[in-house]
Amino acid sequence: MAPLVTLTTDFGRDSIYVAQLKAVLLSINRQLSLVDVTHEIPPQDVVSGAWILRHTVPYFPAGSFHLAVIDPGVGTERRCLAVDWEGRYIVAPDNGLLTFLVRSSPPRRAVWLENRAYFRSEVSSTFHGRDLMGPALAWLTHGVPLEELGPPTQKWVELSGDWQPRVGDREIQGRIVFIDRFGNLITNIGKDCWPRQIRPLIKVGAYQFTELSRTYGERAPGDLIALFGSQGYLEIAVVNGSAAEQTKLVVGTPVLVTW
Amino acid sequence: MAPLVTLTTDFGRDSIYVAQLKAVLLSINRQLSLVDVTHEIPPQDVVSGAWILRHTVPYFPAGSFHLAVIDPGVGTERRCLAVDWEGRYIVAPDNGLLTFLVRSSPPRRAVWLENRAYFRSEVSSTFHGRDLMGPALAWLTHGVPLEELGPPTQKWVELSGDWQPRVGDREIQGRIVFIDRFGNLITNIGKDCWPRQIRPLIKVGAYQFTELSRTYGERAPGDLIALFGSQGYLEIAVVNGSAAEQTKLVVGTPVLVTW
Amino acid sequence: MAPLVTLTTDFGRDSIYVAQLKAVLLSINRQLSLVDVTHEIPPQDVVSGAWILRHTVPYFPAGSFHLAVIDPGVGTERRCLAVDWEGRYIVAPDNGLLTFLVRSSPPRRAVWLENRAYFRSEVSSTFHGRDLMGPALAWLTHGVPLEELGPPTQKWVELSGDWQPRVGDREIQGRIVFIDRFGNLITNIGKDCWPRQIRPLIKVGAYQFTELSRTYGERAPGDLIALFGSQGYLEIAVVNGSAAEQTKLVVGTPVLVTW
Repeated sequence: MAPLVTLTTDFGRDSIYVAQLKAVLLSINRQLSLVDVTHEIPPQDVVSGAWILRHTVPYFPAGSFHLAVIDPGVGTERRCLAVDWEGRYIVAPDNGLLTFLVRSSPPRRAVWLENRAYFRSEVSSTFHGRDLMGPALAWLTHGVPLEELGPPTQKWVELSGDWQPRVGDREIQGRIVFIDRFGNLITNIGKDCWPRQIRPLIKVGAYQFTELSRTYGERAPGDLIALFGSQGYLEIAVVNGSAAEQTKLVVGTPVLVTW
Repeated sequence: MAPLVTLTTDFGRDSIYVAQLKAVLLSINRQLSLVDVTHEIPPQDVVSGAWILRHTVPYFPAGSFHLAVIDPGVGTERRCLAVDWEGRYIVAPDNGLLTFLVRSSPPRRAVWLENRAYFRSEVSSTFHGRDLMGPALAWLTHGVPLEELGPPTQKWVELSGDWQPRVGDREIQGRIVFIDRFGNLITNIGKDCWPRQIRPLIKVGAYQFTELSRTYGERAPGDLIALFGSQGYLEIAVVNGSAAEQTKLVVGTPVLVTW
Repeated sequence: MAPLVTLTTDFGRDSIYVAQLKAVLLSINRQLSLVDVTHEIPPQDVVSGAWILRHTVPYFPAGSFHLAVIDPGVGTERRCLAVDWEGRYIVAPDNGLLTFLVRSSPPRRAVWLENRAYFRSEVSSTFHGRDLMGPALAWLTHGVPLEELGPPTQKWVELSGDWQPRVGDREIQGRIVFIDRFGNLITNIGKDCWPRQIRPLIKVGAYQFTELSRTYGERAPGDLIALFGSQGYLEIAVVNGSAAEQTKLVVGTPVLVTW
């Protein structure tokens, strides 16, 4: 069966960098089935990359492979990681990209990428996705054991800052963590931390909501609503419109729910 | 042979929604060969989606599979359809997306998607592409018969309004139905309804044309021309330029041909 | 093994033109593994297309197939080519698209596409990618010999103008040839023509550089730097920023290196 490989980068979807990366992967294993998650992470935005990985990797089947390259530290002393996360193999620079994934569930195994036998013969100082991480991942798809790639580690970089919601007896404090292309403002407040049968007051910036909608369709076009979106997270949306445009709220904005 | 599946959505090409949809499809059938038609239909624009389907699905071979999710009514009472159209299988919400296809040729069979055995185990109220239509389509690629997915139907929603050209003895009335990324203004007036050997007068907005060009290359750069494009439809173009920018004409603008 | 086919066009990534092209390729050979290099070449920009081909095709393995359609002359008398370049097969209009590739290494064999048996049954005057070049390439992937497609030729169109750097005893004259999506200004001055151990003075527009950086990371954010990029070409970059925005320099701008 063709090994399934997803790609998440900030290279730009139409760049020669993506094409070269795919060429190198396919030169090592012609059987790969490649899925572009996105190449449009804002350049060097590790937080957005971490959020995307958290909400895509778990949907792919065990045995799949995932390459993530948002790598502002390329050419410096930062290391690269390969991990076994819930039976999925992930290769990424060690810069916090895996933060949200490993906080949801710790990796079973992790290694530093150090074995140059699995790098490209010539390694540039600016493109380790093509020259180092891509080849290492492609060799994994060939059945090379994780441990072959380098020494095991139980330490890795995690994002600093407060990215988990705080759940109290009478309130939840969260943040806007992502804006999708419809302009929906997605928070880090999941359904699982939401008490049953409360009458919430939701404050985001200057906006307040006292009820949750069930779908985008049940209110009038233009209405600003709060609802649990398809990811199971509280989000602020405008029916048939863009909440980001209408409210001008940005990623990082605090969200307070009381009841 | 790997089943061929095309995807046409308004999710945005770099969204986690597309990645999750693909993950769900590939989790059910790892052998799929996925082709992105577009994920950039203007959000909730069913007319553009219907036009895209009409001009892409027929080019794919019989036995191919097509998933179309432009779904402003998600979470309301709208139903979902699976149809056998000229030997190609299409799954879509029942909101008019198939209008232009079924008017060009009626489906051989159609069913409502109601059998929850072929849905994802948890169905959200906002993402039926991932949770309901995607899984149903993936099971079709595994050989599940269409009739297994739900009860047969011979009714479906079609777009209201006048989207067919009116062909008379001395005139054709049509519309601009699509603007491609070169700015070419594409009308619904096909070569097949164009009388042979007429000397046409073509009026679109404030513009008039008394002759048809054969190619983009035979006139000077900057010239505004009318020609039958690669889709076999009358279009207005600017040589080496953008007719949309130069004329400011929009989708829906009437086109009158007399002779 | 699935034949590997790359696509490089100016059709626009979400256009029906790309979908129709893929449909035609897959109708002839369902086994193809398709890789989109880019569909976002600026419309009819043969120079950018030639540069992209030069820096992507060689990374793919021998035995791979490459279709390039940037075709401002479609419908005129321009011819189409199929070539064997270093064991890779390339099909393109004969308008200079292969210039940088064939100057780096001449094709082993080249033919004009003239055998209509390998065209689509109906050939439009505006879309030879779908109707002529695509089908011819798809038949190549089936094992049809190159010579079957048409008569051999040893002539082809090359771009006019001075696109090679001039290397002298005390200077190199080059140009900016590409701007990537990070805003890095990429020149045609490769590492291979750079003398060892010089102390260079680099002039680009109103900007001067007296040293080369090794990586993006070793200087402060906002700094304008010169370095050899991941492609092995001299480039001008802004650390964590866009050199294109900061300098307003454009493709074609002369670059002078003296020492």
